[in-house]
Amino acid sequence: MASVEQSTPLFSYTLRLADDALVLGHRLSEWCGHAPVLEEDLALANMALDLIGQARSLYAYAGEVEGRGRDEDALAYRRDAGEYRNILLVEQPNGDFAVTILRQLLYAACAHPYFEALTSSKDATLAAIAAKSAKELAYHVRHAGEWTIRLGDGTEESHRRAQETLEHLWPYTGEMFETDDVERALIEAGVAVDRAGVRPRWQRTLAPILADANLQLPPSEWMQSGGRAGRHSEHLGHILAELQFLQRAYPDARW
Amino acid sequence: MASVEQSTPLFSYTLRLADDALVLGHRLSEWCGHAPVLEEDLALANMALDLIGQARSLYAYAGEVEGRGRDEDALAYRRDAGEYRNILLVEQPNGDFAVTILRQLLYAACAHPYFEALTSSKDATLAAIAAKSAKELAYHVRHAGEWTIRLGDGTEESHRRAQETLEHLWPYTGEMFETDDVERALIEAGVAVDRAGVRPRWQRTLAPILADANLQLPPSEWMQSGGRAGRHSEHLGHILAELQFLQRAYPDARW
Repeated sequence: MASVEQSTPLFSYTLRLADDALVLGHRLSEWCGHAPVLEEDLALANMALDLIGQARSLYAYAGEVEGRGRDEDALAYRRDAGEYRNILLVEQPNGDFAVTILRQLLYAACAHPYFEALTSSKDATLAAIAAKSAKELAYHVRHAGEWTIRLGDGTEESHRRAQETLEHLWPYTGEMFETDDVERALIEAGVAVDRAGVRPRWQRTLAPILADANLQLPPSEWMQSGGRAGRHSEHLGHILAELQFLQRAYPDARW
Repeated sequence: MASVEQSTPLFSYTLRLADDALVLGHRLSEWCGHAPVLEEDLALANMALDLIGQARSLYAYAGEVEGRGRDEDALAYRRDAGEYRNILLVEQPNGDFAVTILRQLLYAACAHPYFEALTSSKDATLAAIAAKSAKELAYHVRHAGEWTIRLGDGTEESHRRAQETLEHLWPYTGEMFETDDVERALIEAGVAVDRAGVRPRWQRTLAPILADANLQLPPSEWMQSGGRAGRHSEHLGHILAELQFLQRAYPDARW
């Protein structure tokens, strides 16, 4: 199997978007039947479905672009952790509810304007997927934002946990705005969106939410990186072990 | 806490409908991130969400009817297995994909016409919940029906497994059509629907699907019973242990 690096930029780019959505969607789906209240169980599961649906469309398109006969399931279920191109933020464990909510806020507040901008892509398929995704992510921002305020501005304990979580997740946010040669070529061609360009809007979305939540923005110091190059935390391996178990154990099985 | 038996018929009846939906929805949600293909992962999760959503509406109404301040979460998360009133079919383990699909078919093919009939209930809230539920269940019948045919009419192995599964689940179908005094009073009042009355339509739905799937209808002999009286298999205890863990460990916690 050819490595991702030998693939076309459009394939690599689409795969990045898909991997971010699948891994985060899988993380949210882990709450299924475990959330503290029925309403939240439904809300988290709905957001998981949005993300896994986005991933499915993106994988299907990536497979088409690649033209080697790999379909959405081959791309989702038959790559090793080192071939995954998601950012490290989305593979961070659910932890308590604050981690899940803040991870979702930090991701969606970036992905929402990013996909909005991608609706102007010269690639019609990406533009269409982006339009649907942007609508869904707008709700994720609203949902995670409201919970962030409830947690941050809640009890002393919930505030403390939310602040700690924000500091823990912050170093994983830099990777959302990294651009490399793969993407630069596509940005110049009007196909991809410059990630750095959405950072101001990300900050404008976060600022009032964190202020209402009484949460302090951590200093932007050293940032984690490596996910786009396939250097993942051990957490991704555990996610894939669970996600891919059936396909690995019984290739092509439908049981 | 008063036992369910001392409660009003309308409360008991609503709780039965809710418990069936929650337990089956939880069973389906266990597939989240474990289905053999992405499309199926999404389909099962969507059906789980339908059922958990139905349960939520029904619990909220049951709590209102009861008038003792128990809300949907108190009813879902703070009753023991013996207080659950779901039929035994819905608590049967997922097993392989055939079990999940046939369990869904047997349930939905009954619940769909049942909720359709309930849209004429003199109780406006139940009628409204039934209308939404019936629409959702129509899709469940279609989805499970198509898969039943693929499995039953597939390979020798898939046919064998589907036939065995049908025979295993069959004794749990009788309970879907049981009527007791609680329901008889409500049926006379035009509030509830006679379960026995939907059996012919259930059979008319199943017959062509099972024929296309080359599956033999098991003889209708001895039927399992007891779920409506709170006599459950050990499986329900395991479901509740998972479902209720957070609420039991941290009452009222939102973490």
